[in-house]
Amino acid sequence: MVVVMKLNTNAEQIATLDNRLKAGGFQTHLIKGVKRIVIGAVGDRQHEDLSGLESMPGVEKVLRIMKPYKLVCREVQEEDTVLKVGGINIGGNKLTVIAGPCAVESKEQLLAAAYAVRRSGAGVLRGGAYKPRTSPYSFQGLEEEGVRLLAEVGAQTGLATVTEVVDEESLITAARYVDILQIGARNMQNFRLLRLAGQAGKPILLKRGLSATVEEWLMAAEYIVSAGNGEVILCERGIRTFENSTRNTLDLSAVALAKRLTHLPVIVDPSHATGKRELVGPMSRAAVAAGADGLIIEVHPDPAAALCDGHQSLEPDEFDRLMTKLRPLAAAMGREMR
Amino acid sequence: MVVVMKLNTNAEQIATLDNRLKAGGFQTHLIKGVKRIVIGAVGDRQHEDLSGLESMPGVEKVLRIMKPYKLVCREVQEEDTVLKVGGINIGGNKLTVIAGPCAVESKEQLLAAAYAVRRSGAGVLRGGAYKPRTSPYSFQGLEEEGVRLLAEVGAQTGLATVTEVVDEESLITAARYVDILQIGARNMQNFRLLRLAGQAGKPILLKRGLSATVEEWLMAAEYIVSAGNGEVILCERGIRTFENSTRNTLDLSAVALAKRLTHLPVIVDPSHATGKRELVGPMSRAAVAAGADGLIIEVHPDPAAALCDGHQSLEPDEFDRLMTKLRPLAAAMGREMR
Amino acid sequence: MVVVMKLNTNAEQIATLDNRLKAGGFQTHLIKGVKRIVIGAVGDRQHEDLSGLESMPGVEKVLRIMKPYKLVCREVQEEDTVLKVGGINIGGNKLTVIAGPCAVESKEQLLAAAYAVRRSGAGVLRGGAYKPRTSPYSFQGLEEEGVRLLAEVGAQTGLATVTEVVDEESLITAARYVDILQIGARNMQNFRLLRLAGQAGKPILLKRGLSATVEEWLMAAEYIVSAGNGEVILCERGIRTFENSTRNTLDLSAVALAKRLTHLPVIVDPSHATGKRELVGPMSRAAVAAGADGLIIEVHPDPAAALCDGHQSLEPDEFDRLMTKLRPLAAAMGREMR
Amino acid sequence: MVVVMKLNTNAEQIATLDNRLKAGGFQTHLIKGVKRIVIGAVGDRQHEDLSGLESMPGVEKVLRIMKPYKLVCREVQEEDTVLKVGGINIGGNKLTVIAGPCAVESKEQLLAAAYAVRRSGAGVLRGGAYKPRTSPYSFQGLEEEGVRLLAEVGAQTGLATVTEVVDEESLITAARYVDILQIGARNMQNFRLLRLAGQAGKPILLKRGLSATVEEWLMAAEYIVSAGNGEVILCERGIRTFENSTRNTLDLSAVALAKRLTHLPVIVDPSHATGKRELVGPMSRAAVAAGADGLIIEVHPDPAAALCDGHQSLEPDEFDRLMTKLRPLAAAMGREMR
Repeated sequence: MVVVMKLNTNAEQIATLDNRLKAGGFQTHLIKGVKRIVIGAVGDRQHEDLSGLESMPGVEKVLRIMKPYKLVCREVQEEDTVLKVGGINIGGNKLTVIAGPCAVESKEQLLAAAYAVRRSGAGVLRGGAYKPRTSPYSFQGLEEEGVRLLAEVGAQTGLATVTEVVDEESLITAARYVDILQIGARNMQNFRLLRLAGQAGKPILLKRGLSATVEEWLMAAEYIVSAGNGEVILCERGIRTFENSTRNTLDLSAVALAKRLTHLPVIVDPSHATGKRELVGPMSRAAVAAGADGLIIEVHPDPAAALCDGHQSLEPDEFDRLMTKLRPLAAAMGREMR
Repeated sequence: MVVVMKLNTNAEQIATLDNRLKAGGFQTHLIKGVKRIVIGAVGDRQHEDLSGLESMPGVEKVLRIMKPYKLVCREVQEEDTVLKVGGINIGGNKLTVIAGPCAVESKEQLLAAAYAVRRSGAGVLRGGAYKPRTSPYSFQGLEEEGVRLLAEVGAQTGLATVTEVVDEESLITAARYVDILQIGARNMQNFRLLRLAGQAGKPILLKRGLSATVEEWLMAAEYIVSAGNGEVILCERGIRTFENSTRNTLDLSAVALAKRLTHLPVIVDPSHATGKRELVGPMSRAAVAAGADGLIIEVHPDPAAALCDGHQSLEPDEFDRLMTKLRPLAAAMGREMR
Repeated sequence: MVVVMKLNTNAEQIATLDNRLKAGGFQTHLIKGVKRIVIGAVGDRQHEDLSGLESMPGVEKVLRIMKPYKLVCREVQEEDTVLKVGGINIGGNKLTVIAGPCAVESKEQLLAAAYAVRRSGAGVLRGGAYKPRTSPYSFQGLEEEGVRLLAEVGAQTGLATVTEVVDEESLITAARYVDILQIGARNMQNFRLLRLAGQAGKPILLKRGLSATVEEWLMAAEYIVSAGNGEVILCERGIRTFENSTRNTLDLSAVALAKRLTHLPVIVDPSHATGKRELVGPMSRAAVAAGADGLIIEVHPDPAAALCDGHQSLEPDEFDRLMTKLRPLAAAMGREMR
Repeated sequence: MVVVMKLNTNAEQIATLDNRLKAGGFQTHLIKGVKRIVIGAVGDRQHEDLSGLESMPGVEKVLRIMKPYKLVCREVQEEDTVLKVGGINIGGNKLTVIAGPCAVESKEQLLAAAYAVRRSGAGVLRGGAYKPRTSPYSFQGLEEEGVRLLAEVGAQTGLATVTEVVDEESLITAARYVDILQIGARNMQNFRLLRLAGQAGKPILLKRGLSATVEEWLMAAEYIVSAGNGEVILCERGIRTFENSTRNTLDLSAVALAKRLTHLPVIVDPSHATGKRELVGPMSRAAVAAGADGLIIEVHPDPAAALCDGHQSLEPDEFDRLMTKLRPLAAAMGREMR
């Protein structure tokens, strides 16, 4: 930690600060600059809350040197974490494609979607049962009936399954039926839910918040891992910016950066990121080339009849063409697809 | 609703769309432009999810005309909602000041803060008991012990109280002890929590999300009101932008705009918005001048020893000077302070 | 300057870096942390470009301690800069109101606007002659004819005048006719124009760029001042964020912060910031309460007929009511209005 | 165009508006909704400025239907524009790689960079001679000496050349020496410079502004094309967002979208977008997979000694490895590299 003092700080202020740092277990190093004094503080204290330091007289700012996350950090574990879900691996040299409808609407719809995405090579079936919707008047999902259908269709098709959970009740229910539990962008800093996810006994797909920094995203993963669950998949799904020609701005640099900072697998959701069906293909390809470990794509047997997000869902044929185009790219990146 | 068709749409596509709209209960009006066809659709259907429309062949985009919120809208209720909490009114021509520490740390700390802020004219005591923290290793709050202290100190000083709730359990517990329940920025779209708040039987202080639009903020209030609780106070606390010289960017235009769009009271949190003690004063004054119904300000008896947010907390003396400077401004705005 | 080394840096890398810093005139201080090594480098070298340092083997990041601007800094000049333009002062304890149409359209229009804004207490007349427009097909301004009209109307009404300049030619022409030259948001980092402004012999009104940080804004002022012109007025006019219910997001925290960081006067443009006529009043009041030294407001005798920005222009009567409401606020802030 | 009226608009307001629209050459269609009246206005009037409409009594908002750009639009020219520069093609099925140092520093440096990038397959040499720098105290470029060196080294190596221009003088000078003129992000809305570029007689590389929407970017290209120069290359270089772990946020969705909206070639600058050497490779690959027509990459023979942007510059060996990895991806995308 480096503490930058204000101009014209007096000796007493510096002594007070120095004592406080030493009392906190730090070794201190005083550096007298041309105009300012800077104090370097050495110690393994990243767990301690030092925000009060910035309020001490004479302090201009406090610069942190250490990364605030530990367990998810590549410096702690160099090799990639590889998760085993159903019969498949996520992470390592695999490229996992998760696909399916925005919302589970009926058994027919889900089964049609599942057979279609399996035929094209997807390994995991997605489908929303507990839907977080901006309007209280929008369709909110089939809830337990939805996760039950996911389990049935998963068993019938041999696909692993993933669904979003939004609170303790949905987490407990969904954990009985599906293989992977998703925490959505709006809940990325729902810290209670993160702790519960740490004890869910199932892998967690953690979406990046709409305005979360990469560091906050990794800290959210740290919540889950530190609560006991090391099986976390990170998912970039677009951030909120001034640009309004796409639903969100897909941040693929964050994917490449996260792959360097953490050993956890990182996947991409081009459907929510762009909100436009015609951009799902190009952004899927770009994600693979950026080094993503997988994709999660909305596919609906009849997008125009979808109860949500129809405009960003692919038809089965479009999805099949996309998968065909992905194969040579995945090969060029040294990735195995199913 | 206005549906804009793509160039070169054919007659069949238009007929299909027209039939779907009519089947949905809309009257349609076809407008042939120089290059494009536009369909106006008339009907009271804002509750229906029409996102599938954008997936129909030939459709370029769908423009919504109606506001998506209803109950919180000024068009539904022209006069200001005024809440009665403890002995005080919030909204109308009052200027309510809520103040107190970031976190409840001990009875001594809370009592010192409470007497100080009461003396300077605050009407409500704030204090966090359930803290949503970015790091799992930071201080997480005293939880039930914290809300019990709030209740004790509130009773002893005659101040109303407010605390943040983060899930069902904390909401139920806090509702037994404190007067106003706060939903924090990170939970603004925790829709389960919003619905529970709709049945909490206590007024709700709803903070704007870090990257929530004004419309999403009002929709979050609509969740609470539509679930049965009309006592909602909106709170602007800064949004996330590229600017990093302040913790967030305080959006006072959103306050002025929200006051026009909704009848609910709107207050401002200059402490979290700026993250800098020296900007709390100017931004409090600006908020009052922008038309805010109140302020929520962090005050700590000893900021340098605070367990969180010390650098943005005022000392009691600073808070007192701020209140003194606010009075003539409040008077100039026709507002009564306590 | 503080250089943070990567984990596992070797002694040779540290020695190389240390030598480079010393060769650059720095004294160095090596701090061995628990996991990392940090080097403090002391020296008055803020003019030197050290970006190459981050490329040296073993370096993780370089943290700058000193502010990059010098001449505009309050640490260099504690008291406020006060400009004298025409018969009026800008800065200090004055509150200056600049008002007039978006674009100069005709002598009749400009004269009507000028008399109206003078009657209500404005001290400076604004009017665009060289318009930077997003579309090449939009009205581009009357150019030299426009600045000539400004000079005529200024002389006739006794108002000082301000207009935007966009390149060398318009700067030279406008400098012959008007009292203050404006550099618009889109040109805030047109560094050639900033240097020319440094030799224009007229005060410069420097708008903050749409996505400029406060530091970049002050650096742009530093360009002008370092080129020889100390008469710079900073103007906050809204930044670009995700929020789309207002044209831009007015950042009043930046105003309060800039007032602390620099001795130059800082004013606010609520018209461009909000893009909505009904928000100009509340945001003008908020700006004054935040500590702004002045306002620049669009007023048009007939907004519905305006060639640009009609929807954000006030009618003369609205402007007069706004000025009436500002007076008690200005008084409460210790500011003199005309 | 669609005009949405306020609630409770009266018949006279509607008649006034209707007459104004008809006088402007529009056919109008009145649609009476359940609560609001909407007027559809048909006519080929996108060149006219109608912003005054929003100021008319009773008008809530005006929704534009037509795209504001015409000449650069794919609806006007379906097939890709392919530029011929030196011996190479840009656009179509080619993948063009532009590479070289941030700034031209000396003949030795430039020649070393040029031979290195040519050997690895680059077709165009970049090098800054007129540098727009945030600080007036930073290195500002060799100016005319710089473009002369570019011309010499280009002739010696057979590479085409590109350099940034910042005003009329640098544009005229550079146009005598180099093959492609770049307009930088900070000048994207320097409309005078855009018009001059329209008459420069050389292809223009137009970077997207730091906070420019895709529409504004295309409008800037429209300025150049409408002034007479159809040879424009668009370049995405990252936008400014809240995320601070990368220098900017590379917006590859904008690349895929721009390729659909315009016939002009679109390339990507991963060096400025990320500001981190280790992300240049992944983002180059992602750009190609997203459909970009080319890349512009900073390469310096000795990054640690670079006068600017050393931390984001590749060494020749790194660049060579990057090019080797790009080839199979380019092939998978059906692109020819040199």
